[in-house]
Amino acid sequence: MTPTIDADRLWQSIMDIAAIGPTPEGGSCRLALTPEDTAARALFLQWCQKLGLRHEQDAIGNMFLRRAGADAGASAVAFGSHLDTVPTGGRFDGIAGVLVGLEVLRALHDAGVTTKAPLELVNWMNEEGSRFRPAMMGSRVAAGEFPLAQALAITDDNGVSVAQALADSGQAGPLNPAPRDWSAWLELHIEQGPVMEATGADIGIVTGTMHARYFQLVVTGEPSHVGPTEMNRRHDSLAAAAEVILAVERIGLGAEPGGRASASWIENIPNARGNVPHITRLHCDVRHNDADVAVAMEAQLRQAMTEIAARRGVRIDVDPYATFGPITFDTGLGTLLRNKAQGRQLSTRDMIAAAGHDSVLMAPLVPSAMLFVPSVAGITHNPKEYSTKEQIARGAEVLLDAVLELAGV
Amino acid sequence: MTPTIDADRLWQSIMDIAAIGPTPEGGSCRLALTPEDTAARALFLQWCQKLGLRHEQDAIGNMFLRRAGADAGASAVAFGSHLDTVPTGGRFDGIAGVLVGLEVLRALHDAGVTTKAPLELVNWMNEEGSRFRPAMMGSRVAAGEFPLAQALAITDDNGVSVAQALADSGQAGPLNPAPRDWSAWLELHIEQGPVMEATGADIGIVTGTMHARYFQLVVTGEPSHVGPTEMNRRHDSLAAAAEVILAVERIGLGAEPGGRASASWIENIPNARGNVPHITRLHCDVRHNDADVAVAMEAQLRQAMTEIAARRGVRIDVDPYATFGPITFDTGLGTLLRNKAQGRQLSTRDMIAAAGHDSVLMAPLVPSAMLFVPSVAGITHNPKEYSTKEQIARGAEVLLDAVLELAGV
Repeated sequence: MTPTIDADRLWQSIMDIAAIGPTPEGGSCRLALTPEDTAARALFLQWCQKLGLRHEQDAIGNMFLRRAGADAGASAVAFGSHLDTVPTGGRFDGIAGVLVGLEVLRALHDAGVTTKAPLELVNWMNEEGSRFRPAMMGSRVAAGEFPLAQALAITDDNGVSVAQALADSGQAGPLNPAPRDWSAWLELHIEQGPVMEATGADIGIVTGTMHARYFQLVVTGEPSHVGPTEMNRRHDSLAAAAEVILAVERIGLGAEPGGRASASWIENIPNARGNVPHITRLHCDVRHNDADVAVAMEAQLRQAMTEIAARRGVRIDVDPYATFGPITFDTGLGTLLRNKAQGRQLSTRDMIAAAGHDSVLMAPLVPSAMLFVPSVAGITHNPKEYSTKEQIARGAEVLLDAVLELAGV
Repeated sequence: MTPTIDADRLWQSIMDIAAIGPTPEGGSCRLALTPEDTAARALFLQWCQKLGLRHEQDAIGNMFLRRAGADAGASAVAFGSHLDTVPTGGRFDGIAGVLVGLEVLRALHDAGVTTKAPLELVNWMNEEGSRFRPAMMGSRVAAGEFPLAQALAITDDNGVSVAQALADSGQAGPLNPAPRDWSAWLELHIEQGPVMEATGADIGIVTGTMHARYFQLVVTGEPSHVGPTEMNRRHDSLAAAAEVILAVERIGLGAEPGGRASASWIENIPNARGNVPHITRLHCDVRHNDADVAVAMEAQLRQAMTEIAARRGVRIDVDPYATFGPITFDTGLGTLLRNKAQGRQLSTRDMIAAAGHDSVLMAPLVPSAMLFVPSVAGITHNPKEYSTKEQIARGAEVLLDAVLELAGV
C-alpha cells in the first residue's frame, strides 16, 4: 500500500493545536514553556504515542519522536520544527513543520511501511525567542553553539529562568543536549513572505539564509522633571532611543531588497508620567542576504548611535549578543526536494530565508534543507497568518517523498 | 516666647522620611499607597500625634492634621504638600512642603503659642501620578474636580485599583473628600529649576502656573515578522511612535523659553524580539506660560500625528485626558509672602510654576499661594535633587511668619 498524505487529517491537527492558547483574532499565543506550550506538547505527544513512536527528551526541552527502521544501525532521517509561537502568533509558523512531519509518520503507519533507516520527528524548544532570548534556543544548545548552563540561567521579562520554566512545565528531559545520529535534517515552514504567492510557486526550495545580527542597546540619560526642566537641559533617553529606532528603520530601507533592520522591543525607565526618561533599552537587528552588507549595516547603525549619543549627551551601550547565518543549505538535498516537487507536478522556486530557523543550527552538523509552502499575502507572526489546506498538503507530499528516498524502503 | 524654626530638627525629619524607600543613588522611591508611602505616612502621623494634632483622613487618603485655635469658629489657615515620590524621586519634592509645615507647628508647640484661627497641615494623596494617573489625584478629588468613584476605579500598570491600594494600605479614611473650611492655603516647594540659584534668590514667590495638557496616545499598526517582512510592507507602531516622540520634543524646543513638551511613558505590544510592533502607547504633555500657546502646541502635535499616521498607514488615537492651569495665585497672599521674606532680609523673585502642584486645585476654592526654595542645579525627580538645610529653613521661617499673620495671635 502506498503511503498517502491525508490533507484533512493534517489540517485538523493544525487546528487542534491552534485551539490551545487561542487569541481573540484567531491566532495562537504559546510562548515557550508556558502552560499553553506545555499543553500543545502533551497533545502532540499523545498523537505520537498512538503511532508507537519512541519519545526522548533532552534537558533543554527538545522533543525527539523516533520511528524504528528495518536497519537498526542506520543513521536516522530527521525532520520537524517548533510548536511555540510569538505573542501575536498565527497557526502555522513552526506548527506546520511539526505536524507535516507527524502526517508523514501517520501515512507510513497507515500504509504499514517500514523504512530502512529510522525516522525522527522533532519539536525544538523556544524557537521564537519571544520569552527567552536568544531565539532557536533548543537547537542552539543541542548543536553545542550555546552552553546548556548558560541557557538555563536566562530569565524572561518577569525574572523566571529557563531552568525554572522547564521544571514548572515538566519539560526538562533526561538526555544531555547533543547532536544526534542523523543522516539528514529537513524542515518544512511557511514562507512568511509574499514571493511564492506572487510568483505562483507551490514549493520553495530554501537554498540558504540571510546573515542576521542581534543587539541589545542601553541608552542612559539623566532623570529630571517633565515640568520645570527646560528642553535644552534634558538628556532624555527615550527621545534618543526614538532617534535610534528611526536610524534602524532608515538603514533597513536603504538595504532593500536584500536587507531588513528592526527595533522590536523597548523598556523605558522610570516610565513615569512626571519624569523625563533616563534609561531606555532597545532590541534591534540588522540582516541581509550578503553577510558583508549586514556587517556594513551594523557599522552604519553604530555610527548613527555615536552621533546621537554625542549630540544629546547620553550614553549608548551596545551588546551584540547573537548572530545567525549566512547558511548555505545542502545542495544535494535541495536537488532532491526540487525533483520530488517536480515529480508531483508542483512548481518550485529557489529562495533565501530571512528569518532564523532551527535548520540554521543543524546545517553545520548534518546535511540540511528547508522547504517553504506559500503564506497568503506574506502575513506572519500575526493572527491572520494563513496557508491553505492544499498548500500545506502539497508540502507534506514532497516531504514524504524525500523522506522515503532518503530512508529507503 | 517667640516661635523659632529649628533648622537641624527640620533637616533630620526630612532625612528620616527619605530613609523610607531609599534608592541606591541616595534618593527615595515611595509611589502612592505602596508600603513605603504607607510607612512614611505612619511616621509623619506619629510626629503629629506628639504635638496633639487632631487627625482626619478622607476616603481618597488625604491626611489633615489640625491644631486648634483660640477662636473655635474661625476658618483654618492650611498648608502642606505631599509625601509620595516618583520612582526616581529625590528627598525634597513634596516632602519639604509637608515637613516645613510640621516644623511650623513644632515651633508653635515649643513656644506655647496658640493662634486665633485653627491651623491645618495636609499630606495630599498621589500628587505625583506616577502610579495612578492623573497626578494631583487627592487634591483633585477633594476639590470636586474629579469624582471619587472614578478615581477609586483607576488602576496602576499592574491592574491594582486605587480602591484596592487604599484598602490594602489602610489609608481610606472615613471623611467624604470635599473642600474644607479654610481661609488660606499655602504650599512651600523646591523650585525644581535653576533660576533661583542662578539669580541668587532666597525665596520664590509663585504668582501662577503654566497651562499643561496631558494626552494618552495609541498607535495601531499591523503585526508582522522582523525577518521576512520587507521594510516597505511594514506598519510599525514603534517606529511611528518614535516619530511622535521626536515631534513632541521639536514642539517643546520651538516653544522655549516659556514652553515644554514631553513624552515620558511608553508601552509596546507585543514587545517581542521576533515581531514588528503593532500597538504602541505613549503618554505626552505640552505646557506653556501662555495658555493660548499651549493650545497651539497641541494643535501642532495633532497635525504632526495626522501626517505620521497617513504616511505610515497606522492609526493614532488621542485621549486628552487632563489639563491643569493656568492658575493665578492670590496676589494678596503673594504680597504677604514677599513682605515676610523681606522682613527676614531674604531676597525674593516672582516665578511661574511649570509643574503641577496640589495648589493648582486649591486656588479656585480658597486664596492660595506657593513659595519656592532653591534647588541645586535645578535637578529634580532625581536622586541628586538637593536644597540645603539653610535654604529650607529660610522657607520655613517665611511660612511661619505668614501663618502667624494670617491666623493671628
